[in-house]
Amino acid sequence: MPEPFPADSVGLVVPKSIHFDEPLSLDGGKTLEYYDLVYETYGELNASRSNAVLVCHALSSDAHAAGYHHVDDRKSGWWETCIGPGKPIDTERFFVVCSNNLGGCRGSTGPMSTNPATGRPYGPDFPVVTVKDWTRSQARFSDALGIKQWAAVIGGSLGGMQALQWAIDLPNRLRHAVVIAAAPKLSAQNIAFNEVARQAIRSDPDFYDGRYDEHGVKPLRGLKLARMLGHITYLSDDAMGGKFGRELRDGKFGFGFDVEFQVESYLRHQAEAFAEHFDANTYLLMTKALDYFDPAADYDHNLAKALDHATAKFFVVSFTSDWRFSSARSREIVKALLDDDQDVSYAEIEAHQGHDAFLMPIPHYLDVFRAYMNRVAEVSR
Amino acid sequence: MPEPFPADSVGLVVPKSIHFDEPLSLDGGKTLEYYDLVYETYGELNASRSNAVLVCHALSSDAHAAGYHHVDDRKSGWWETCIGPGKPIDTERFFVVCSNNLGGCRGSTGPMSTNPATGRPYGPDFPVVTVKDWTRSQARFSDALGIKQWAAVIGGSLGGMQALQWAIDLPNRLRHAVVIAAAPKLSAQNIAFNEVARQAIRSDPDFYDGRYDEHGVKPLRGLKLARMLGHITYLSDDAMGGKFGRELRDGKFGFGFDVEFQVESYLRHQAEAFAEHFDANTYLLMTKALDYFDPAADYDHNLAKALDHATAKFFVVSFTSDWRFSSARSREIVKALLDDDQDVSYAEIEAHQGHDAFLMPIPHYLDVFRAYMNRVAEVSR
Repeated sequence: MPEPFPADSVGLVVPKSIHFDEPLSLDGGKTLEYYDLVYETYGELNASRSNAVLVCHALSSDAHAAGYHHVDDRKSGWWETCIGPGKPIDTERFFVVCSNNLGGCRGSTGPMSTNPATGRPYGPDFPVVTVKDWTRSQARFSDALGIKQWAAVIGGSLGGMQALQWAIDLPNRLRHAVVIAAAPKLSAQNIAFNEVARQAIRSDPDFYDGRYDEHGVKPLRGLKLARMLGHITYLSDDAMGGKFGRELRDGKFGFGFDVEFQVESYLRHQAEAFAEHFDANTYLLMTKALDYFDPAADYDHNLAKALDHATAKFFVVSFTSDWRFSSARSREIVKALLDDDQDVSYAEIEAHQGHDAFLMPIPHYLDVFRAYMNRVAEVSR
Repeated sequence: MPEPFPADSVGLVVPKSIHFDEPLSLDGGKTLEYYDLVYETYGELNASRSNAVLVCHALSSDAHAAGYHHVDDRKSGWWETCIGPGKPIDTERFFVVCSNNLGGCRGSTGPMSTNPATGRPYGPDFPVVTVKDWTRSQARFSDALGIKQWAAVIGGSLGGMQALQWAIDLPNRLRHAVVIAAAPKLSAQNIAFNEVARQAIRSDPDFYDGRYDEHGVKPLRGLKLARMLGHITYLSDDAMGGKFGRELRDGKFGFGFDVEFQVESYLRHQAEAFAEHFDANTYLLMTKALDYFDPAADYDHNLAKALDHATAKFFVVSFTSDWRFSSARSREIVKALLDDDQDVSYAEIEAHQGHDAFLMPIPHYLDVFRAYMNRVAEVSR
């Protein structure tokens, strides 16, 4: 019988869940009395517990970073490109852990979970969470797993910001921070795009101030718009041009408002698939976490000062065509680290795919990522 | 009594309207049996009728390019920066004409006008119009004004595209084409942004397939989203950063979904003001005209071939921080003209304001624009 999955995949994986009974104080002033985190692991933890790496996910992602949930799954985890046997995050060497962030909608406690105060889903009453809240919850999670120090905390986009926050808030608990396609904080334009996405969701009449669940509906229109917009910012102009150009679906102008250009068809399709399975309240929370992310703010708005007491070694990666978090934003992180005489490696990868490049099998990217992870592995044996 | 308006303003202006009874065949196959164009003029037509310039407006603009409609108007016409006595488009030398495009909502025949077939407003039944339809309607308009040849046809953004189309379709009817902050056609990303704006409007429950007027409502939510999104693309990341940074309206995070960052407040305010006075069906039509604009398509997708029989002299202007229609897009136009050995001047203006820079009083921009218009004036006396 042939193997159902590629040889370089971790194959079938089963999500796990862990319950935390100790209350968690959040930056916003509220407290979660108890919560669950859903996570997946790939590879084996070694005897010295020194080969564990924590992978942090991006805005609308989840704990399913690699492998497949079912034998007939056609879709693998979101970072299948980088996690697996022989891949940059090599599961033959590393024990890889990925957890769904608090406030998520893929198993961890979030707006769809039951609010102990009411016995009904939290909905809009789920507190706003920050990247710092996530690192705090993940520190406890690390304790529960018996991992005193991660060989590396790794993430792309919002996940990269989380890795940066880890290095600042919990310096002794990681040896390496891998910060990919991220920024030290959002620009006004980044916030503006998030705000349009939020307004799209919140102005949808089916949103009902976040209590759509009680009305048996979902703000699908708003979520679709938010996703279409997000999608534009994930791709470069060139990538969109290369993929769709100005090609017409039916070969000629229709002089109406149905789908005409291929790019329109693609956006609508992507958005529909997304809106069906993602929770609107979670989407709102994740964009807020992005807006609030600004680790330098606690250190006189001086990023070098924020990173000064970090002890991890850093690997920063950016992509030339990423206009959501451009290379210039990554270089701000690198410069702050250099100002501190920190150990930092930086790679700017030539890529036409835009922000989404961090998910793509770009040979040069995989090569430098693998090379850096070899370095991580050296002291993790 | 002091003058109510600045000395370099054309001052009080009165819009005029002109009726056309001859049916106009449109690119989409439909025909307008009759139509009106609203326009404004500034300055005096000379005896030889050689000093007239036609100004073409952008997406959501109108015929009110300069001056004031009322003594107590605080807001001037949209291109007050460039049109007036002593300004680049000098009303002491030029007879300046600006008309609202067909399909508009500011006086010219459009979705809010009465459909002769039903006696009610056209609404969504107003035919899709193209940039070529506009130049065709403006050619008749020129005949009616007795202007055989414009000294220049001038426009920014969609207006610049219209100037380009004039040079291609009606080569003998203009001596100069001034094409500012434009592109030879939209990219897939440009189309994608338009599509999100259209979906925002069309998925608003108050849109009623475009028949919102019959229901006594307006799709305000959708129009606001479209405008917020548009606004992001009109400004550069730097301009937004310079204007708002990450400043908080109330000085601290609210951990909720009210307005927090100044940029959010600005976007919401701008969008509300816009949605109140602009018609959604017109917005849809204008974005379609943009998407369809592709003058090279009629010439084997070869822009140089399209421009080969143009006889106008060209002035092309772009702005360094414009990411909606970047300098690279303007250089495509310049290259095609150079390939044809056409007379073209090109200025790339250092500016941080993004696409909106074409409306701004940027000294170097005004200087080169004035210098070029001096050249236009030389043969227009």
